[in-house]
Amino acid sequence: MSEENKIGVYNFVAEPFHVDFTGRLTMGVLGNHLLNCAGFHATERGFGIATLNEDNYTWVLSRLAIDLNEMPYQYEEFNISTWVENVYRLFTDRNFAIMGKDGKKIGYARSVWAMINLSTRKPADLLALHGGGITDYICKDEPCPIEKPSRIKVSATEPVGKIEAKYSDIDINGHFNSVRYIEHILDLFPLSFYKEKRISRFEMAYVAESYYGDELSFYRDETDEGIYEVEVRKNGNEVVCRSKVIFDNNI
Amino acid sequence: MSEENKIGVYNFVAEPFHVDFTGRLTMGVLGNHLLNCAGFHATERGFGIATLNEDNYTWVLSRLAIDLNEMPYQYEEFNISTWVENVYRLFTDRNFAIMGKDGKKIGYARSVWAMINLSTRKPADLLALHGGGITDYICKDEPCPIEKPSRIKVSATEPVGKIEAKYSDIDINGHFNSVRYIEHILDLFPLSFYKEKRISRFEMAYVAESYYGDELSFYRDETDEGIYEVEVRKNGNEVVCRSKVIFDNNI
Repeated sequence: MSEENKIGVYNFVAEPFHVDFTGRLTMGVLGNHLLNCAGFHATERGFGIATLNEDNYTWVLSRLAIDLNEMPYQYEEFNISTWVENVYRLFTDRNFAIMGKDGKKIGYARSVWAMINLSTRKPADLLALHGGGITDYICKDEPCPIEKPSRIKVSATEPVGKIEAKYSDIDINGHFNSVRYIEHILDLFPLSFYKEKRISRFEMAYVAESYYGDELSFYRDETDEGIYEVEVRKNGNEVVCRSKVIFDNNI
Repeated sequence: MSEENKIGVYNFVAEPFHVDFTGRLTMGVLGNHLLNCAGFHATERGFGIATLNEDNYTWVLSRLAIDLNEMPYQYEEFNISTWVENVYRLFTDRNFAIMGKDGKKIGYARSVWAMINLSTRKPADLLALHGGGITDYICKDEPCPIEKPSRIKVSATEPVGKIEAKYSDIDINGHFNSVRYIEHILDLFPLSFYKEKRISRFEMAYVAESYYGDELSFYRDETDEGIYEVEVRKNGNEVVCRSKVIFDNNI
């Protein structure tokens, strides 16, 4: 298979209600676009959610790491390319490159996905699915020069924020929407932060689902200057997800 | 000018993270699309925000009313057409039609806009701007068979919800994002509501801006069965916006 067919490229524009007060695209919206691109790419190649659901399987996002030199500004066009870097028995690595208005690479992202059986919620063997057809799309030649998702460990014992999961937080599966976690985590930081700094790296590790009415508590460590690790726990102490946010003074 | 050029038509698909737990597009996302279409349509005809900003003017949304028979389902394609119905000295009426997957009209919307001078914040004379060029686009023949935005008057004295305006709520102008009000208002209703009912009509009246750190309180009346009027006040008693939500049992 040609290398070109292994990579999907999708065009976007930074819409006015998708940018923050600095005029830059929000991390939540970028995350949404990345996940959509993953879906488009998989669907076009026959291993998208719709096809999988017929066979009673679905993709589950485990990790996401985004590294950026800059965010698209309001009304700017940008594109996202995505490809599969590795397929293991239980996980697959999908990478992304984000290209800004002048055809300049402005960022990269890495993601890790598992596939589960919708009835048993148990992980599926990716190498066995459709005769291992997904491995035909492995693309080793495309660079993704950013670090893999790291291990996040939060030691804070007092939450810095609490929310209750509401209607707008819940997705079609009845789970707390993966993108809304990103927004709620970034809302832990005051506006003044975003005036002086920009996010140079953002990581999410999705651990467990949360549901409507759950009380989510946000615990946060500052592990180094401008480096924050956040853990979200539901209804007491069960970990739902973890995040790492690296702020850069170089705005 | 031909009638066709007066109407702009824009295509969309209901993205997975833009649908609620029932699989239907959320009202906030639909509102976002409508406002984007207004922007596209105006820009293409030379009276968009970018052009206006150069002259130190901007559009301000005053009213929005959406009437729907159904919401697009996840992955369904739909389109939104928009046109200018009336231009007065201080306001213009812009209408929308929403067409579902089978080319069936599934809803309509009405909006009312003013233009303000960015320095003085005072309203501008629409009939004088660019020699009244916007009036060339008035389209009287296209039907919009829904009621105009109504008068909303809330008498509740105790709030049913409170939030503090956070980073993700704030738009490029430093104001609370028009779309986020919609989400927060719909979050006042429990999930069980949306299981049994669907929103058949939704109205917003934008009265004043709110800002980062403002405490927003939500007051709500049930004026008739399934008909709710909501008033959002900031930092005590100043009205920010009002909304009317009509739920229909016929899901």
